[in-house]
Amino acid sequence: MDLHDIIKELREENAQKIVLLVADGLGGLPLQTGGKTELETARTPNLDALASEGVCGLSLPVLPGITPGSGPGHLALFGYDPLKYRIGRGILEALGINFEVGARDVAIRGNFCTVDAAGNISDRRAGRPTTERCAAMCAKLKKIQIPGVEVFVEPVREHRFVLVFRGDGLGDQVNDTDPQKTGLKPLEASGKDTASRKTATVANQFIQEAGRVLGKDLPTNMVTLRGFATYPKIETMNQVFGFQAAAIAVYPMYKGLARLVGMTILDAGSTLENQISVLRSAWDKFNFFFLHYKYTDSTGEDGNFAAKVDKIEKLDQVIPDIRALNPDVLIVTGDHSTPSKLKSHSWHPVPTLLWANSCRSDQVTGFGEAQCLQGGLGQFEAKHLMSLAMAHAGKLAKYGA
Amino acid sequence: MDLHDIIKELREENAQKIVLLVADGLGGLPLQTGGKTELETARTPNLDALASEGVCGLSLPVLPGITPGSGPGHLALFGYDPLKYRIGRGILEALGINFEVGARDVAIRGNFCTVDAAGNISDRRAGRPTTERCAAMCAKLKKIQIPGVEVFVEPVREHRFVLVFRGDGLGDQVNDTDPQKTGLKPLEASGKDTASRKTATVANQFIQEAGRVLGKDLPTNMVTLRGFATYPKIETMNQVFGFQAAAIAVYPMYKGLARLVGMTILDAGSTLENQISVLRSAWDKFNFFFLHYKYTDSTGEDGNFAAKVDKIEKLDQVIPDIRALNPDVLIVTGDHSTPSKLKSHSWHPVPTLLWANSCRSDQVTGFGEAQCLQGGLGQFEAKHLMSLAMAHAGKLAKYGA
Repeated sequence: MDLHDIIKELREENAQKIVLLVADGLGGLPLQTGGKTELETARTPNLDALASEGVCGLSLPVLPGITPGSGPGHLALFGYDPLKYRIGRGILEALGINFEVGARDVAIRGNFCTVDAAGNISDRRAGRPTTERCAAMCAKLKKIQIPGVEVFVEPVREHRFVLVFRGDGLGDQVNDTDPQKTGLKPLEASGKDTASRKTATVANQFIQEAGRVLGKDLPTNMVTLRGFATYPKIETMNQVFGFQAAAIAVYPMYKGLARLVGMTILDAGSTLENQISVLRSAWDKFNFFFLHYKYTDSTGEDGNFAAKVDKIEKLDQVIPDIRALNPDVLIVTGDHSTPSKLKSHSWHPVPTLLWANSCRSDQVTGFGEAQCLQGGLGQFEAKHLMSLAMAHAGKLAKYGA
Repeated sequence: MDLHDIIKELREENAQKIVLLVADGLGGLPLQTGGKTELETARTPNLDALASEGVCGLSLPVLPGITPGSGPGHLALFGYDPLKYRIGRGILEALGINFEVGARDVAIRGNFCTVDAAGNISDRRAGRPTTERCAAMCAKLKKIQIPGVEVFVEPVREHRFVLVFRGDGLGDQVNDTDPQKTGLKPLEASGKDTASRKTATVANQFIQEAGRVLGKDLPTNMVTLRGFATYPKIETMNQVFGFQAAAIAVYPMYKGLARLVGMTILDAGSTLENQISVLRSAWDKFNFFFLHYKYTDSTGEDGNFAAKVDKIEKLDQVIPDIRALNPDVLIVTGDHSTPSKLKSHSWHPVPTLLWANSCRSDQVTGFGEAQCLQGGLGQFEAKHLMSLAMAHAGKLAKYGA
């Protein structure tokens, strides 16, 4: 039986409020064997108090050893099995620039490239143009018209743009046209089924037109397309969990992921303090809040241990403001680990704390990876976090008599 | 989505080397409540250092409470779900005597038995003949010819032999012919489908011929057949994980299991020191090594606690030789527990350590069951061990964007 079927069968709506605070890439590693992680190094009296009163554990976003991207990492926290619900690269790129993709869309990641007189690719990234030039080239591409579909082109940055075809019966089983090597022509797009062949035909027309409109604009005189993806069919969090859910995120990608599961996207401003103000003013209108904090991931990706520690300490400082609102369930976790030692996302389990009045206390007195390992939640698949949140919020009835 | 599909999608080949050291039946039990297990009793400074620097846990070979045989235990460690990939008894027997079974074979475990004048079984094991007599009787059986198939008969020991039919379209859904009681006639073989009926017909012909050639050789004057099994269709470790994999095992069964998943079988000699020399000389040619150490299991099966402790200490002594080769990932575990208190395989979780540069250290300072219970790997299904090994060796890309 599917997890969502059980939840839909057992769920009971009430006014209790759940806050899911996601510190992106929260988990870390010590720089030296036996040392402390970023979270363990940070001075976090407020998180420690929450951990001490609540219950802690380590979540596995996907499976042991599997490093998640932001999409699967967040879907799991939102209660969606990341192995069942997959989000294609094109859709994620579109979400990342706040493009509102819909059910009739195929979203595609585009790259500007350079081709020589014979049409062979000489630079797969067109010498990494400035983002301004990217926007100017996209303005040219926007003029391309293809009968039967709407075409949208939006710049991302440097050589990257998002291309969306909107129309009926468009599939996404289409190959990438980037041959992955210089000295070769871009590949022709071809589709695996009828709907995808339709998309491929449109894509090949677009590429031909792109060559025409960009033709003299060296070095950005051609494009390659990859990650063809239709909008995934996902039930909303309201449909599955019965939540009135709101997202308070600064970065477009996370707003997009929240929109994907039907959350209302609140204008979050650009700072953590803005986010907390928004939370406060929206408090009465929703019963589930997703707060996203990006900087624990970006500092980890930069390999900057000290900066990650600092960003964790900054996050700790807003915890009293959240608690002042009297949430019934407050969860602090990450969508994956981003150890500054590795400068990338990793597969290591993610420190997680859940605070509510119905927690069975464990021996954890501070929020950190080693302490979480001793916590009452144990190591668990992240997709179960929402069931735990619902249970602690009195939103799940008994299973069976 | 199947685990192997994910791994095939995400895997990236590189030169990093993984060593999987399997101490067969490693897990144990204290003789008295509150006492120490064999592994906890053994003096193991080198394993303790590895455990201290790396990450530990307890692996569940199949499911809680399920005691694995050597086949499922090893398949799980090799990254194959032992509930999905099953190896029939006949195939395991054939692997155990180093018989090279192939895709057109049905392998069967045979027993010599004694029948009386009426054809009823009076001794199901023919008085446990000597292994020499077993070989002599097999020599007689080898002469049996059956049209349309090749017949192979190989002695195992005492009353046991391996029978292989090689031909096209042979199934393995055939009943055991041993009635499990004396005073009854051997059962007729019958097949559940067309291919298996073909095998059953061949088997009945073989049994009839066996009666004829053995007829006067009391007490080994008849045979029963059981565990009909075709060769399982298993992708190789190279196909699934991209490994260049080599096995360094002394006993045929483990060589056979390694061959089943496509490992190159290196001539390992007969001692642990031989095995280490082979590892050293093959080091540059492969990037995955399976080393099998039998004696932790056989001493456990003997119920000899002190001998098992001694064998563990002997294993500990070669750890520096392995580390001197600078493996990127070194795993020490067992395929199951074999507590000398129980004198048999058991279902108890198996102490496991993984050493690599990217480990999140836990509080474990020595290699033993109680300490592993506090380890960062937690309790996990053994089939996930290969994903963890790959992650730590940088061989798995991010899942999703």
